Amino acid sequence: MSAAADGSRIRLADIAAEAGVSVATISKVLNGHADISPATRARVDALLTARGYTRRPVGEKPRGDLIELVFHEFEASWSMEIIAGVEEVAKQRGLAVVVSESGGAHALGEDWLEGALRRRPAGIVLVASALVDRQRLRLATRGIPLVIVDSAGDPPADIPSVGSANWAGGLAATRHLIELGHRRIAAITGPGDMLCSLARVDGYRSAMASAGLEVDPRWVRFGTFYVEGGRDAARELLALDDAPTAIFAGNDLQALGVYDAARERGMRLPDDLSVVGYDDIAPARWVSPALTTVHQPLRRMGAEATRMVLDAATRSSGDVVPRVDLATHLVERGSTAPPR
Amino acid sequence: MSAAADGSRIRLADIAAEAGVSVATISKVLNGHADISPATRARVDALLTARGYTRRPVGEKPRGDLIELVFHEFEASWSMEIIAGVEEVAKQRGLAVVVSESGGAHALGEDWLEGALRRRPAGIVLVASALVDRQRLRLATRGIPLVIVDSAGDPPADIPSVGSANWAGGLAATRHLIELGHRRIAAITGPGDMLCSLARVDGYRSAMASAGLEVDPRWVRFGTFYVEGGRDAARELLALDDAPTAIFAGNDLQALGVYDAARERGMRLPDDLSVVGYDDIAPARWVSPALTTVHQPLRRMGAEATRMVLDAATRSSGDVVPRVDLATHLVERGSTAPPR
Repeated sequence: MSAAADGSRIRLADIAAEAGVSVATISKVLNGHADISPATRARVDALLTARGYTRRPVGEKPRGDLIELVFHEFEASWSMEIIAGVEEVAKQRGLAVVVSESGGAHALGEDWLEGALRRRPAGIVLVASALVDRQRLRLATRGIPLVIVDSAGDPPADIPSVGSANWAGGLAATRHLIELGHRRIAAITGPGDMLCSLARVDGYRSAMASAGLEVDPRWVRFGTFYVEGGRDAARELLALDDAPTAIFAGNDLQALGVYDAARERGMRLPDDLSVVGYDDIAPARWVSPALTTVHQPLRRMGAEATRMVLDAATRSSGDVVPRVDLATHLVERGSTAPPR
Repeated sequence: MSAAADGSRIRLADIAAEAGVSVATISKVLNGHADISPATRARVDALLTARGYTRRPVGEKPRGDLIELVFHEFEASWSMEIIAGVEEVAKQRGLAVVVSESGGAHALGEDWLEGALRRRPAGIVLVASALVDRQRLRLATRGIPLVIVDSAGDPPADIPSVGSANWAGGLAATRHLIELGHRRIAAITGPGDMLCSLARVDGYRSAMASAGLEVDPRWVRFGTFYVEGGRDAARELLALDDAPTAIFAGNDLQALGVYDAARERGMRLPDDLSVVGYDDIAPARWVSPALTTVHQPLRRMGAEATRMVLDAATRSSGDVVPRVDLATHLVERGSTAPPR
């Protein structure tokens, strides 16, 4: 039984009668059995969704002992960390992790959804992917909980999500540069329509303001989150009359672009320019000088999202939708030093 | 029924009689049903293995529609490419991919094996992991096929595997440097006990020999496959009286170490030194100058292994164990130029 939006109870028997099938058939559709014709399944699904039937995650043993982890796009430096975190917690709970890429489109494919419903996972962790409402309803009819791992900072308000402290990260990066003695500090950040870009650069502004330092408007640049974005912005910054002595880049790839722009001008790092990145992807340790950067805890974000989705069964429907921002911290390496 | 080593037929009925259980119980053990006591399962398993019972992969629909992909260790730049290749082919065949890390030990954990037997995957793809014989036998009793993705170059001879053309890659890298006009070309490679290290450096030697160039024994260095390994070796090479004008590094991380060693001496790349890497991981495109490197087709290796494991059902037991080495190719970027 399930409460509809108007407060009435939805009984499977009523839906069965309306669909002209038995309650057992409805159960088979909900449990992902293969021996139901596609036409019947579609009819039952449409009715379940239309009537607003939802099943609460009841903690019953899911058939496949699986967690589904879905990426919008596999990205080498990022995705692996999240997979490792999800797998770590899943393993502790005796579950296996199914990893998928939803691909180009922003909404997940129907093929993926059909497969997931058949596999009946204990929960779904989405990374930068989106479900359309109809897909969310179909998962709700099966009582399959959903959590979003969100590094961009703008998940739907009604889905539990795990992010990281972007503003605090920007603050910590900038304070580090101020403590080293820098006064002319510039910031490069990502696209202006991503909340994480805004939060990081706001952390930078607050650190500057609380140290009594003015921010020249020309010192704040928005660009793509790739090497080229950092390079282009840094070329402009380093060509200024009163060029900054330090640059806080919005992510590690942008920071590598800043390295390039500095070298083009014959500058040495960190002697002539200090650089701080954001993310702490593996190449940050491999480049020379090794990059001082803000560590985004991707692995812990994956782990936390998995715990959250597996604990969904113990939450009441009246509870506030959980949103967790994990702490970021600065990792000091060789790319920052006092100004000359 | 199954053929034992002595040519006799092994019948499940005999094993059932010997174990004191019904044939139905044996079937349940083989099919991973949960309602068999651990003691009975262990007894039946031991007998099946001792009698050499094996089931042929018969292409029947596996329960979970799953492929298992197991890494010895998740490694950011590598693992993601292989996952993407496996997932691509699995998706085409309507299967989902379970990703696991076997962790520190070289053999897979028993927990993992129990889980995999319960999930009854259509096949297992192992990356740099090893199964002990007893584990292989248990998979064989279930008819679950196995393929190894092997980049190191030394998989067991009786398990199908997919690798890449290490020797040809070393040859192509060195020929490229020779064609640019270099004559004093050094090679850094990985540990001497890994076949891939030997194959790559043999490719280098053959390219040098076929161009009529002598190899000074001091020009060939073995080291770890990390940044430090490349840096240490390059420091020694660049300190030689008649230092090389070009270095072929055994992988991209070593190549980044060569960058460091060259910069320490105030050398400019590629003007003062040409560098070729191996692997073509994402950071090869991000560093400056972008790294000329040998592309190891990790994604295609994952895809090929998946096709191979799914097609295992159509192979006869008398067929040669398949071993495929996919082609490597050189990707020219900014780190190589004619010598001055």
